[in-house]
Amino acid sequence: MSIGSALESLTPTARVESAYERIGAVDRPEVWITLRAKDDVLADAANVERRLAAGEHLPLAGLLVAVKDNVDVAGLPTTAACPEFAFTPQATAAAVTRLTEHGALILGKTNLDQFATGLVGTRSPYGAVRCAWDETLISGGSSSGSAVAVALGIADIGIGTDTAGSGRVPAAFHGLYGLKLTLGIIPVHGVLPACVDYDALTVFATDLATATTAAAVMSGPDTRDPRSRTWPSDVRLAASPTPRVAVPRPEDLTDLSPSYLAAFNETVTGLEADGVDVQTVDISGLLDAARLLYDGAVVAQRYAAMGEFLESDPAGADPTVSAIVLGAKAPTGYQLVRDLDALTHAKAAATALLADVDALLLPTTTEHPSLAAVQDDPIGVNRRLGTFTNFCNLLDMAAVAAPGRATPDGHPFGVMFVVPAFHDQVAIDLAAGLAGLPAPQLISAGIELAVFGAHLRGQPLNAQLSDLGARYVEDIVTTNAYRLYALDTVPPKPGLVRRGDGLGASIVGEIFRISPAGLGVFLAALPAPMALTSIELSDGRTVVGFSCTHDAVDGAADITGYGGWVAYTRS
Amino acid sequence: MSIGSALESLTPTARVESAYERIGAVDRPEVWITLRAKDDVLADAANVERRLAAGEHLPLAGLLVAVKDNVDVAGLPTTAACPEFAFTPQATAAAVTRLTEHGALILGKTNLDQFATGLVGTRSPYGAVRCAWDETLISGGSSSGSAVAVALGIADIGIGTDTAGSGRVPAAFHGLYGLKLTLGIIPVHGVLPACVDYDALTVFATDLATATTAAAVMSGPDTRDPRSRTWPSDVRLAASPTPRVAVPRPEDLTDLSPSYLAAFNETVTGLEADGVDVQTVDISGLLDAARLLYDGAVVAQRYAAMGEFLESDPAGADPTVSAIVLGAKAPTGYQLVRDLDALTHAKAAATALLADVDALLLPTTTEHPSLAAVQDDPIGVNRRLGTFTNFCNLLDMAAVAAPGRATPDGHPFGVMFVVPAFHDQVAIDLAAGLAGLPAPQLISAGIELAVFGAHLRGQPLNAQLSDLGARYVEDIVTTNAYRLYALDTVPPKPGLVRRGDGLGASIVGEIFRISPAGLGVFLAALPAPMALTSIELSDGRTVVGFSCTHDAVDGAADITGYGGWVAYTRS
Repeated sequence: MSIGSALESLTPTARVESAYERIGAVDRPEVWITLRAKDDVLADAANVERRLAAGEHLPLAGLLVAVKDNVDVAGLPTTAACPEFAFTPQATAAAVTRLTEHGALILGKTNLDQFATGLVGTRSPYGAVRCAWDETLISGGSSSGSAVAVALGIADIGIGTDTAGSGRVPAAFHGLYGLKLTLGIIPVHGVLPACVDYDALTVFATDLATATTAAAVMSGPDTRDPRSRTWPSDVRLAASPTPRVAVPRPEDLTDLSPSYLAAFNETVTGLEADGVDVQTVDISGLLDAARLLYDGAVVAQRYAAMGEFLESDPAGADPTVSAIVLGAKAPTGYQLVRDLDALTHAKAAATALLADVDALLLPTTTEHPSLAAVQDDPIGVNRRLGTFTNFCNLLDMAAVAAPGRATPDGHPFGVMFVVPAFHDQVAIDLAAGLAGLPAPQLISAGIELAVFGAHLRGQPLNAQLSDLGARYVEDIVTTNAYRLYALDTVPPKPGLVRRGDGLGASIVGEIFRISPAGLGVFLAALPAPMALTSIELSDGRTVVGFSCTHDAVDGAADITGYGGWVAYTRS
Repeated sequence: MSIGSALESLTPTARVESAYERIGAVDRPEVWITLRAKDDVLADAANVERRLAAGEHLPLAGLLVAVKDNVDVAGLPTTAACPEFAFTPQATAAAVTRLTEHGALILGKTNLDQFATGLVGTRSPYGAVRCAWDETLISGGSSSGSAVAVALGIADIGIGTDTAGSGRVPAAFHGLYGLKLTLGIIPVHGVLPACVDYDALTVFATDLATATTAAAVMSGPDTRDPRSRTWPSDVRLAASPTPRVAVPRPEDLTDLSPSYLAAFNETVTGLEADGVDVQTVDISGLLDAARLLYDGAVVAQRYAAMGEFLESDPAGADPTVSAIVLGAKAPTGYQLVRDLDALTHAKAAATALLADVDALLLPTTTEHPSLAAVQDDPIGVNRRLGTFTNFCNLLDMAAVAAPGRATPDGHPFGVMFVVPAFHDQVAIDLAAGLAGLPAPQLISAGIELAVFGAHLRGQPLNAQLSDLGARYVEDIVTTNAYRLYALDTVPPKPGLVRRGDGLGASIVGEIFRISPAGLGVFLAALPAPMALTSIELSDGRTVVGFSCTHDAVDGAADITGYGGWVAYTRS
């Protein structure tokens, strides 16, 4: 995993030195609104090194973090890209605190479309953030600085926010991963609201493992965020072994630039070649819902957040942002009720649309505009860029933005795996599959279940586990207290029986992690003579695992000598 | 159970005859907006009798239903108590269809506070509905006719709706049960919206068993209602064996009339005498949230529902209702955003407030006003009546309204058990306990688990099941394939071992029903040498139940002859 190799190659101190060298070399001052003094970050690095030396396990030790400047870091001003708005918070955002607790180092606060209103990265008095690989193109926004800091190789982790697509569009332009988890999984304490019901904290990284580890660390409820949510007790912990992925009809993709359309089609073709079952669906209902974010009354959330401030006509206000926010004063309450009702219907329809697939694959955005194009038509270009991202939070869905196939001229192109709320691990697994990489673990919830026979991978009943969203974890071996018998069942199954320490042999099996409800459902469906009990592993752990009833082994062949079911079946 | 005895005593036809006699005798024409022709209901009764004769199981066979006239019944006009609004629907509301499918008979459509806006029962051009036991007092509303039809002994089941308390306040005035389940459990397809996000269908009945059976039949998702919800996979299926109930501080009860305050305090004293652990909590946050239903921007939902219609100044519009609905045009979208945000915070606070108790006990309403008092102050009296009911749907809570102790002058007084979303069965159990009756089953979800030793009721590990919300179902007996052993465990446990048909004895045990997640968590915590497997019962069923590992019975005493663990421990 790249996250591990990155940590091994350089000390935290060396990583800080290297980052500041790179900051000096790239000449992109517009990335940062507040860059911390190098000595302060070096002091933090030294502290991390002391913690490592003391034996602490720090999964993010020395990784460098760029924080979007609408997210609080204690002692640094939060500007939201409006200098007149700035205040200096006393507390760091809950999720950012978790990053530093796990060893990450904060470099500073990054530029954004003012008040996180925009997908372009140009709406800021601190300067338009330019694309990392072509200064004439936009970076995408609103999490522009954090994305470019990662794309330029300065930061390992870019913290963004995403209401309309701000944690995904800049990822698409730069070949990054952008994780927008289910709303509430990463608490938004310490985040300046844009649309208070639809704001998510997000993570950018060049590799999926780093992004996933950071997102996992940031996840978990915080009592200061009333919208915090936990993984439900029937959470899916893996994509299907043979994933089914929905894609839009050609007529849903007419807004795509020719090069993006070509790249999207190539990405889909690649998925099919990898064995993914691709199904075409009508996403017009999703695209209709997307338009409600700005064109309806939902935009009133933006006036509620910063309307009165912008009415004071502060000097540094971006004129486009001001126009949007002040226009959001007009919608009436009953119009908002009706638009929210439309979203309720759209959410139910989306759930039905995706009921039989693992995820929906979409292009992240439609095109890669130049700075000049945005200057000519700041509203229209921005609107097009959000075509495929805007609906996600409105309909309570999660999305993982990932690099797709490059465009015909070799530039980055991004796709998203979009999933219903809480199916985040499914999206991560699919993104890993697209890159041909092992899937990193986002969700640590669940119960470990040891299997020894027909539920092993490749065996006839394994689908019972994958249908319940169980995730393969590892191969394991029991203590030598167990004997294995060939039972008289259909399909053939082994019976693992505890006889006592030294009275058997170490038997090989596999551990799956499954949700609590999945385990209950699995047990309820388990036919005689199978049983579940606690099984001792050779490494000292005890986990739930298979056994069988006493009468089942009467007269059954003792196959302990094979050491496992697969060896026996191949004999 | 009274529902059973009522069914046995009279045929459906006889029940219809009796109901129409009673309708004629009571002289309460204001109860009905559309009373069906007796011959039509008799034809339905004859059909139910044919179905019974054909062997159908109809748990509501012949029970008579009064349907609030904002709920559709195919072929009967839906007026919402506004004659100019009337239309005749082609489809019956999904939940009402389920009642008739299970044998219930619809008598007609009942009067209500117009557009379900009010808690008084007087806001209707079809006449003020008078209290069943005192014609000078109000009936309560808005589900006034349905409640009075039940209280007068005409209908067995009154169908109401409840946004602000309309399914509970009339119950309190008439000594009825009023079930307002978690939003979405009973689908609202075919219900005219009042506040589309906060409307629940409700049930009135004189006995809890009938109300619960009706609510259970009405429950379950309908694809036509995008707000439909199912019981979660960790749903609690029972109140605690020793319930903990929160009650308000005295300063939260200052709006109560002296007689209601006395009755509430007597009700609490009675609960304590019954062994309930009563804890005082500060409910001021809930009362603040309640005020947001009418005093803030949330009322915009009412304009969204019927504002344009009332702007046409229809002849039959109730002036108070019109004033409220037309006033609901004024709130802005951003004000609504802020009020909804306040509710989000209040909901999180309420969840924390009730985290350690089974339920909150509240008086259902503050006083029983006269018709004259409401005429003098239609808004003020109505507002007081909703003091304790208004917050419930806003904060996504469920409530069971039940008769409390009578007032000092012998009149009905009502209380509510208020619980977080999906804890509905807990509230029903507590209401049953208050009446000293067995608790009827609302939720049929869950998995049956057979226990034979330390998890039996009264045994040392039974709390492991009740902590997971498991519900005792019945005593059971295994087939004669099992032998029982006294294991060497702490605490002492039996090992139930399958040896084969006729090779053991029938062993007594108990079945608990537990949520899927509860079963998974239970299994994960189960120590060696216990196991769970499928167990054959003497009645031919197979359920999940206890066994143990093979080595555990080596050298253990065979106690099969005792027929069960409790008999052995007492020997």
